[in-house]
Amino acid sequence: MKATRMLRLFGDVKSGNCFKVQLLLRQLGLQYEWVDVNIMNKESRTAEFLRMNPAGQIPLLEVAPGLFLPESNAILHYLADGSTNLPADRLQHAQVLQWMFFEQYLHEPSIASARFIVRYLGRPPEQEQRLQQKIADGYEALALMEQHLGSRTFFVAERYSIADVALYAYTHVAHEGGFDLAPYGAVCAWLARVQAQPGYVGM
Amino acid sequence: MKATRMLRLFGDVKSGNCFKVQLLLRQLGLQYEWVDVNIMNKESRTAEFLRMNPAGQIPLLEVAPGLFLPESNAILHYLADGSTNLPADRLQHAQVLQWMFFEQYLHEPSIASARFIVRYLGRPPEQEQRLQQKIADGYEALALMEQHLGSRTFFVAERYSIADVALYAYTHVAHEGGFDLAPYGAVCAWLARVQAQPGYVGM
Repeated sequence: MKATRMLRLFGDVKSGNCFKVQLLLRQLGLQYEWVDVNIMNKESRTAEFLRMNPAGQIPLLEVAPGLFLPESNAILHYLADGSTNLPADRLQHAQVLQWMFFEQYLHEPSIASARFIVRYLGRPPEQEQRLQQKIADGYEALALMEQHLGSRTFFVAERYSIADVALYAYTHVAHEGGFDLAPYGAVCAWLARVQAQPGYVGM
Repeated sequence: MKATRMLRLFGDVKSGNCFKVQLLLRQLGLQYEWVDVNIMNKESRTAEFLRMNPAGQIPLLEVAPGLFLPESNAILHYLADGSTNLPADRLQHAQVLQWMFFEQYLHEPSIASARFIVRYLGRPPEQEQRLQQKIADGYEALALMEQHLGSRTFFVAERYSIADVALYAYTHVAHEGGFDLAPYGAVCAWLARVQAQPGYVGM
């Protein structure tokens, strides 16, 4: 019997997009090898890395030798396919994707970017105008989440799915970008529910 | 036998995100009712529309009476589920989503935004700096597409899928945002392959 080759995850510990994948791998009980890629040192832009992922981004999952899957939410879908973290029902499946596209279109570009400017770039004055726009957009995303979660326990079908994993990643560190979550009671209650899930591990 | 209720699509004819859904509906042979929502008149921000979609965005698909699905790529997934336009294979399915997330993260925010500024806002001087950034980002997206399509006929598994539908929408009108596609030979050949698909209809 051949040994199963372990999954390899290329990522940066500072990245919420990488944390998403780590959290789900842990919750699914999957073993994996972590390969550290420091984006501050531009290690995702080397010729060697670009051969694995021409987009020069992490996370990157090596699903089989030499076969690489980029895009954090596509990776979550690949890993969760067939598990209870991804509904089989056609509409619920699409609703999970609805929130994952929301995450990558509005939530991550605002909340993760604000966090990066504040925490990792040291809030340089020349980025202040850009930061203020990111903060405004981030609060818009949080308001939509608050409205949705006001009458729900999780984003889709009242159960924990990869939509929750995707949105949890940068929401739970939003304060590092200067966001005040206190007025978002439903969001805070949902964060606590995610943290109470079996196999939860912090960033 | 009860009559099947027709799908209703709320959209704006100017929007590539809405065109994606119309193209797929046509190719799947699905009947639908079109409800015009003029975004220039802020018709997607009325109290009535926000009750259907709190995010205030089109396209919006009414899949059953009072049940609304937003996010163009989630709608494509819902409609294509079980068809030949969405591979059942786990990795290929994730690769289709990989390109759809790429589309919403880099491609649409740059190419569609540049087109909106140029064609619909009349390229106002105060938006010129923002436009230049959108154009730079858009060419980055086109370069990644060109590299990928250099050795492929379609984005995933050598067959037409919703990844192609999603990326086709704004690529085929990129010139309206000032993009010159001539140097992107593989992209242009792929545009022609999409246009040759059964049931193709223009924007």
